[in-house]
Amino acid sequence: MSDPAAGIPAELKKYRASIDNLDAALIHILAERFRITKEVGELKARHAMPPADPDREKRQVDRLRRLAAEAELDPDFAEKLLNFIIREVIRHHEQIAGGGRN
Amino acid sequence: MSDPAAGIPAELKKYRASIDNLDAALIHILAERFRITKEVGELKARHAMPPADPDREKRQVDRLRRLAAEAELDPDFAEKLLNFIIREVIRHHEQIAGGGRN
Repeated sequence: MSDPAAGIPAELKKYRASIDNLDAALIHILAERFRITKEVGELKARHAMPPADPDREKRQVDRLRRLAAEAELDPDFAEKLLNFIIREVIRHHEQIAGGGRN
Repeated sequence: MSDPAAGIPAELKKYRASIDNLDAALIHILAERFRITKEVGELKARHAMPPADPDREKRQVDRLRRLAAEAELDPDFAEKLLNFIIREVIRHHEQIAGGGRN
């Protein structure tokens, strides 16, 4: 119990339990986000709207950078992550639009 | 009101309000996740532990792929996203370790 090294795995284990909980939350929020963007993709395909919307994306990036800064998260990382998610969404929208037209 | 095109922006607007709420949740969960991984990085630097832990990462990927599948989120996307986040975490850990040593 007085061995300092013995405390490391226990402390790390606690942090990892929190990380695992947060990751499960991330997965479920993303699953819900993709449920909604799938609806958006189908709506856009039905009305022949373009899959991407640069003005909307610019507003999203600006807002998320501000929210990230307030939460002490690196705004550049937040922007890169949003772009990563949006690229996946646009890929889905293109698949939906392509599937509806071909 | 009977113009079908008039309904599109309203429907899209509702979806986008949900997406914006979910994105704010994502940002705050990620901010909390990085608060914890910063603690992990400092713990690892203090004890000269390596920044990356391939066994832990393998278990995380397997678990998140399973959670993603259950939530009907593409497991490949979930894995790519986790790898994107972990790369950022390791970059932070290396900075902390470097800063502590130099």
